[in-house]
Amino acid sequence: MTETADRHPRTYTPTDRTVPTRSRERAAYDREMVHSILDEGYVCHLGFVRDGAPVVLPTLYGRVGERLYVHGSTGSRPLRMAGQADPGLPVCLTVTHVDGLVLARSAFHHSLNYRSVVVHGVAHPVTDPEEKRRALDALVDHVVPGRSQDSRPADTKELAATAVLRLDLAEVSAKLRTGGPNDEPEDLGLPHWTGVVPVRTVHGAPLPADDLAPGIGVPDYLTTL
Amino acid sequence: MTETADRHPRTYTPTDRTVPTRSRERAAYDREMVHSILDEGYVCHLGFVRDGAPVVLPTLYGRVGERLYVHGSTGSRPLRMAGQADPGLPVCLTVTHVDGLVLARSAFHHSLNYRSVVVHGVAHPVTDPEEKRRALDALVDHVVPGRSQDSRPADTKELAATAVLRLDLAEVSAKLRTGGPNDEPEDLGLPHWTGVVPVRTVHGAPLPADDLAPGIGVPDYLTTL
Repeated sequence: MTETADRHPRTYTPTDRTVPTRSRERAAYDREMVHSILDEGYVCHLGFVRDGAPVVLPTLYGRVGERLYVHGSTGSRPLRMAGQADPGLPVCLTVTHVDGLVLARSAFHHSLNYRSVVVHGVAHPVTDPEEKRRALDALVDHVVPGRSQDSRPADTKELAATAVLRLDLAEVSAKLRTGGPNDEPEDLGLPHWTGVVPVRTVHGAPLPADDLAPGIGVPDYLTTL
Repeated sequence: MTETADRHPRTYTPTDRTVPTRSRERAAYDREMVHSILDEGYVCHLGFVRDGAPVVLPTLYGRVGERLYVHGSTGSRPLRMAGQADPGLPVCLTVTHVDGLVLARSAFHHSLNYRSVVVHGVAHPVTDPEEKRRALDALVDHVVPGRSQDSRPADTKELAATAVLRLDLAEVSAKLRTGGPNDEPEDLGLPHWTGVVPVRTVHGAPLPADDLAPGIGVPDYLTTL
């Protein structure tokens, strides 16, 4: 299994599942764009099928090259299901950023500016201890880049209590909307304000825990978040 | 069908699907809390099953009392599937807000503060024209409260091109994590910074469309977003 980006083609190959039925011009398969959308998110929405019905749960994730990892207690539902399933658990993993509220003159053309990535595939439990450690580091570094080097690594008991699932980035698409509203020509004279309200995610000042020892200052990797 | 909040009990009734296997203390069924989490979001993640595999798509939604609505082109996949399915399309609709990055001394106890709502149910196409209009107003007002009154309503052609799905709020749970890190007692002396980095969604100044006529100022409902 290769994990170096330079051995991969520049784009993911579209499949029946990753070509949308509508707004095809918004779909993209560029590998770098997909990675950047994934790396910017905190939470993915992981979908799987349980008793024939869909389940969508928010969860942390991490990326190492062309692999995504999610983790959880060994007792949690999708982790248990993936461990029991052979050959793995079919999942759909989606990450979305909202970038703007698009206000058109007509109700019909209201929209959001957004960037999303949808990954289809089969999730497998990670059993190799080295891969599991790398995956857990990636999960911590996904929350705060660099943080895995400034925290106590999982010990044997914690490793045993944590299940990690791997999902290869193979059947992947991004979808984006950017720009202003697309009003109908006959609506241009209507008296309604029209434009975009930008939406951003921002970080507040770090709040130290009550029991933080005096003298331990805010690390650099937090001031540059 | 009642839609007035005061005829409903204060909480949703937990079911097998809405009681988590882990971290049960984070689950909540309070109706007002569920509504407030739903009303604060812009995008939901809608899960459904296609050819036996899960699909999770980000989409706008709106709420009217105890009903959620999603919409899309009559040609889009879930909308077509719900129209063909009898009696409706089993879905799972999830909304998540990230409120903070939780940095513990141990990698294991890193976490996010978040609020999420998961709705299980069967989505049905809305066929009643009055309900469809109300749903479309709710979808616009969900993006910007009050906006449906300051835009051109959908005309007959637009209404015909738009499919709307209804999902009743019946099998619903919220899940929350708040507060600081939960480190192990034996880790309290470790030299790592520990605490929470707050995460917030903010709005930038409204950007008028290039073709906005002079003299149409930013409406009040945008300045108080």
